[in-house]
Amino acid sequence: MTWPLRLDADRFFPADPATRSLSRRLFAEVERVPILSPHGHCDPAWFALDQPFEDAVSLLLWPDHYILRLLFSQGVSLECLGLRPHDNAPFETDRRAIWRRFAGHYRLFRGTPSRLWLDHVFADVFGIEVRLEPETANYYFDAISAALENAAFRPRALFERFGIEVLATTEAALDPLKHHAAIRASGWPGRVITTFRPDDIVDPDREDFAINLGRLGELTGENASQWSGYLAAIAARRALFRAHGASASDHGHPTARTADLPKVEAQALLDRILRGRAERGDAELFRAQMLTEMALMACDDGMVMQLHAGSWRNHNPWLLRWFGPDKGADIPTRTDYVGALKPLLDRIGARADFTLILFTLDESAYARELAPLAGHYPCLRLGAPWWFHDSPEGMLRFRRQTTETAGFYNTAGFTDDTRAFLSIPARHNLARRIDCGYLAELVVTGRLDEDEAAEIAIDLAYNLAKTAYRL
Amino acid sequence: MTWPLRLDADRFFPADPATRSLSRRLFAEVERVPILSPHGHCDPAWFALDQPFEDAVSLLLWPDHYILRLLFSQGVSLECLGLRPHDNAPFETDRRAIWRRFAGHYRLFRGTPSRLWLDHVFADVFGIEVRLEPETANYYFDAISAALENAAFRPRALFERFGIEVLATTEAALDPLKHHAAIRASGWPGRVITTFRPDDIVDPDREDFAINLGRLGELTGENASQWSGYLAAIAARRALFRAHGASASDHGHPTARTADLPKVEAQALLDRILRGRAERGDAELFRAQMLTEMALMACDDGMVMQLHAGSWRNHNPWLLRWFGPDKGADIPTRTDYVGALKPLLDRIGARADFTLILFTLDESAYARELAPLAGHYPCLRLGAPWWFHDSPEGMLRFRRQTTETAGFYNTAGFTDDTRAFLSIPARHNLARRIDCGYLAELVVTGRLDEDEAAEIAIDLAYNLAKTAYRL
Amino acid sequence: MTWPLRLDADRFFPADPATRSLSRRLFAEVERVPILSPHGHCDPAWFALDQPFEDAVSLLLWPDHYILRLLFSQGVSLECLGLRPHDNAPFETDRRAIWRRFAGHYRLFRGTPSRLWLDHVFADVFGIEVRLEPETANYYFDAISAALENAAFRPRALFERFGIEVLATTEAALDPLKHHAAIRASGWPGRVITTFRPDDIVDPDREDFAINLGRLGELTGENASQWSGYLAAIAARRALFRAHGASASDHGHPTARTADLPKVEAQALLDRILRGRAERGDAELFRAQMLTEMALMACDDGMVMQLHAGSWRNHNPWLLRWFGPDKGADIPTRTDYVGALKPLLDRIGARADFTLILFTLDESAYARELAPLAGHYPCLRLGAPWWFHDSPEGMLRFRRQTTETAGFYNTAGFTDDTRAFLSIPARHNLARRIDCGYLAELVVTGRLDEDEAAEIAIDLAYNLAKTAYRL
Repeated sequence: MTWPLRLDADRFFPADPATRSLSRRLFAEVERVPILSPHGHCDPAWFALDQPFEDAVSLLLWPDHYILRLLFSQGVSLECLGLRPHDNAPFETDRRAIWRRFAGHYRLFRGTPSRLWLDHVFADVFGIEVRLEPETANYYFDAISAALENAAFRPRALFERFGIEVLATTEAALDPLKHHAAIRASGWPGRVITTFRPDDIVDPDREDFAINLGRLGELTGENASQWSGYLAAIAARRALFRAHGASASDHGHPTARTADLPKVEAQALLDRILRGRAERGDAELFRAQMLTEMALMACDDGMVMQLHAGSWRNHNPWLLRWFGPDKGADIPTRTDYVGALKPLLDRIGARADFTLILFTLDESAYARELAPLAGHYPCLRLGAPWWFHDSPEGMLRFRRQTTETAGFYNTAGFTDDTRAFLSIPARHNLARRIDCGYLAELVVTGRLDEDEAAEIAIDLAYNLAKTAYRL
Repeated sequence: MTWPLRLDADRFFPADPATRSLSRRLFAEVERVPILSPHGHCDPAWFALDQPFEDAVSLLLWPDHYILRLLFSQGVSLECLGLRPHDNAPFETDRRAIWRRFAGHYRLFRGTPSRLWLDHVFADVFGIEVRLEPETANYYFDAISAALENAAFRPRALFERFGIEVLATTEAALDPLKHHAAIRASGWPGRVITTFRPDDIVDPDREDFAINLGRLGELTGENASQWSGYLAAIAARRALFRAHGASASDHGHPTARTADLPKVEAQALLDRILRGRAERGDAELFRAQMLTEMALMACDDGMVMQLHAGSWRNHNPWLLRWFGPDKGADIPTRTDYVGALKPLLDRIGARADFTLILFTLDESAYARELAPLAGHYPCLRLGAPWWFHDSPEGMLRFRRQTTETAGFYNTAGFTDDTRAFLSIPARHNLARRIDCGYLAELVVTGRLDEDEAAEIAIDLAYNLAKTAYRL
Repeated sequence: MTWPLRLDADRFFPADPATRSLSRRLFAEVERVPILSPHGHCDPAWFALDQPFEDAVSLLLWPDHYILRLLFSQGVSLECLGLRPHDNAPFETDRRAIWRRFAGHYRLFRGTPSRLWLDHVFADVFGIEVRLEPETANYYFDAISAALENAAFRPRALFERFGIEVLATTEAALDPLKHHAAIRASGWPGRVITTFRPDDIVDPDREDFAINLGRLGELTGENASQWSGYLAAIAARRALFRAHGASASDHGHPTARTADLPKVEAQALLDRILRGRAERGDAELFRAQMLTEMALMACDDGMVMQLHAGSWRNHNPWLLRWFGPDKGADIPTRTDYVGALKPLLDRIGARADFTLILFTLDESAYARELAPLAGHYPCLRLGAPWWFHDSPEGMLRFRRQTTETAGFYNTAGFTDDTRAFLSIPARHNLARRIDCGYLAELVVTGRLDEDEAAEIAIDLAYNLAKTAYRL
């Protein structure tokens, strides 16, 4: 027996009939609005080369750390999902077998957003009409393989079908950006832009930090072991990214700590680090200082700054050793913003020409810290619910805990933040539905007028991201 | 085109029809219950002098840090809202222009409680029937100006119209209380009482701390540089406040930390501070000790004690320098209560004749710390959702996260905590509606009987504040 | 006038009619599923001896710290509730008077789960049809006394009537387990098993720690002052508990901190502690190390491990001195899991043959730490909402904040964790209703299919506990 797969036309709207009916009206006006995806991790090579995607496993399963982590949590080894361990121990190579294994565990995803995104991809992108289960696994594998051979499923065709207006990828500071150059050179009108992500050259805890600084110096002709040369080199890389479309930088730090050191202390700090004499706290202080430096550069070059703070990367050292990063072993930590951001805010918090978009994995900061900060400082905007919180309940908590203090206009619209390209429409669709449901609730409970809700729905779906990210 | 302004008769009630209908029944019985306002920041001069209010800007905009902060967060300078910078740089003086500027940004307040309070003031206090927008700004300014010339809009008339039974203002410990004396001497029957707020004489981090202690000594004839004289002087000020109607003290501290030092250590601490030899942590320890001392005095003189902990005051130093405090730049911080209050509770936590009302800006403490503490210690009561959390969602979170552990009877009723006098009815109306909606939900989901809900609705609207604040 | 007492057939279901109707359908299929109670604090003597319970006060009031704490918080002394102070000061001995006092304060429990559980016990276990109030107190006392004389109200008869399949009690590591032996020897088929709770032999902060280690050595013939002997002795006790049915150990620690010390350091640590030379942090480090040791033993002997972290036991020293522990004076604290559990997880986090069930009193950890950890590490499962959070709102927060990241299948089913034996059916009934309402909501909002919800309802009510606790 198989079960039908269908996307409920009223999905994610509140249950109350009056609220639901208004949600539906609001959503009808934003459903087809073009997608702005100003932060994410798609591979620019897809759009530069426009090669067909391979199969269901390499397209939908391997790149998705949400899927890998939940399977792993229930004892499914990464080897048997086809991931190659670094010691070349045996691993599954039969992709159909891998897909069948995934289908056999699909029930694990009940109640998670992964399930909602995947079902949307299956039903809406591939037109599949039965639920993924052991019984339908082969059918799925074949149907997806067949579709991917079709020209309509090539990256550029999907980009256009999805109605994407802008898609930002994320590249490390030393990336040559050749795929972005190729996209521009190709004449294809799809707007795929890069984002400047300098973690590899600002984080002294990375093993390759000194090497990266050497490379940074070579690429820019600056002496990156001197503080002023180091900053000039970074400014040069930022300019290159700007030339490849970047409107924003992105910073993934363990904490939100910032600092504002005199130049001489910054030089001494850099010296200690490069000479292997770093003291306890130096790496954190260096990253903190670099957030402020990046903010100052943003004031100069007009790039928007994003801060993704509070993830303990690679919490499971065993997984890192054998399978590398981004396999679902990053764990959020408690994160302070009020004290952490003060040095940066003391310096340029009141500048309305600078924009810092804050993301958090610590929801306890929404109402206590982030909404009050964003509801005061002109430079601050609140990023969309991030990662584990990019979900129906997570989005509702975000709205309920930030709107009353920060309003809607100190938020920065939705970011899908994904490398799962096919799920981008699913994610925006979900976010728009949740927002429309929330707005409908405000109207039905006498907190907003309907004409205002309709206007805000478009702001949340499109205008706020456009403005905040300067797209 | 202008939009109508109307207050939905069912506003803030749950959407579900059965729950809404019961909410309406419960609210009908508490809507007209007199207002107890046992904590707030109205100016007693209003009621002493009973002068007409000036205009919409000085009455509704300038005193309201909720409004200033959100406008500032979107790049509206305080100068162009008419606030005079301390360096006397240019600032807007045309009040109509300021009001128009506010109207032009009124959309920023969508989804915030400020919008709900203001609309209530516009519609219910002033009888305005169109929404505030750029197109209606002049009409608003004129209508409000005209109304304020009317005797019915003088402070005492409004006090009576609003059905206020008691209004507590807040005065610093050295305040001469002349307006309160004048109110009493005037024969006007409105009950406006003071509250003893001694932050200026217990917080060594204030620049004027030593000066204040000198003044405290003069006023009381005690030697305030000696520990015993200092305490005696404070007791004398408390007695004076009691004589001017005070039923409560209020304490605004960065943390909830308390201490219980032997007298000799307290004297040594005071000595270090007054001699400019304070060590790191001394100021915090001094404030901590003073919370316990105030609690002990409360056991003697019968005043109720309120603790408002966890605000990082004046987070934006630039704003403080040019515009002073209370302009919307205070940011909440993570706040511990379990360890912090222990010294005080160890000393007098079991005394049922002492009442300490706890407020928080850190909602994560509701279910984890505050409700368990209040559900055990006889002296503790939970204050209403404070400041950023004085909002529909904030109030619901408070009830949902505290009731199951602390019940209703360890809470202290609603406090509007406002200097926006005209919004007091709006705030109590909102709080009563949210509470009735919550109670209705308990009944509809089989957690409470309707007769009990009706009784609790009155307790929350009136009786709990009356008892907790000993009014 | 008295009020009727009736349990609403739709209680605890969402108010929305469509969601409620589906909740009812889902619940109908799980209402009668046998009860698994894999963690709690019932007295095994009840089932060994099968003596009648005494009266309403000793059965329902005295053992229930939820009741004692809320009465105490409103100034009702424990003496006047019949608790004997350690100094033998006067205390109430008239049980009817105590019951009447309780009835007089029953309104305090409005909105709390205690009220819901008690009403279920009154209505469903005793068949009472009027609400508990001062007017009905005598009737209640007499009705309950009369019922308890009836053989149908003896412990074993109730156990059977309640449909309990397994009931786990909790015994300290040195407990002789004679009641469990007697139950088994009696031939009564009820499955009452023990749980290994070694806090008394792993917590150096206990005054009797050294004495307990001495006793541990005697009981096992090991030298418990040597690290290896100490571990061997504990393993021997675990084996004894296993032989008395234990499938799990349980650990109540102030924090979730774990450690992984080399043996020589562990020996040195034990030495310092036993010789009275413990340094600051040693007790915490010892407990941390012992969590890892217990986990390692669990890998060997197959016992499941439960961690109940984050309670500040006996926060009120006065109450502890005069009335002892477990009288409602334990207060939760902020609790870290991400760093705290890392040493243990680094050692055995990826073992799927080991199960560690995590409980928390700090709900801010649900979405931030616990769900991400459980959604990655194969050994981790999330325990049911604990203690203050074992309530309608608490359960909903748990589901809403963990499901999207950890799914349903990384949770461990419901545990009633109670010594209030008569409330066990009430608690499971409540939990099942809340879960069915949550599942119905997922279906109605298009996040789950109904057939899946029905399957999950049984998983949550029965299968997950069965599997996680290896029952």
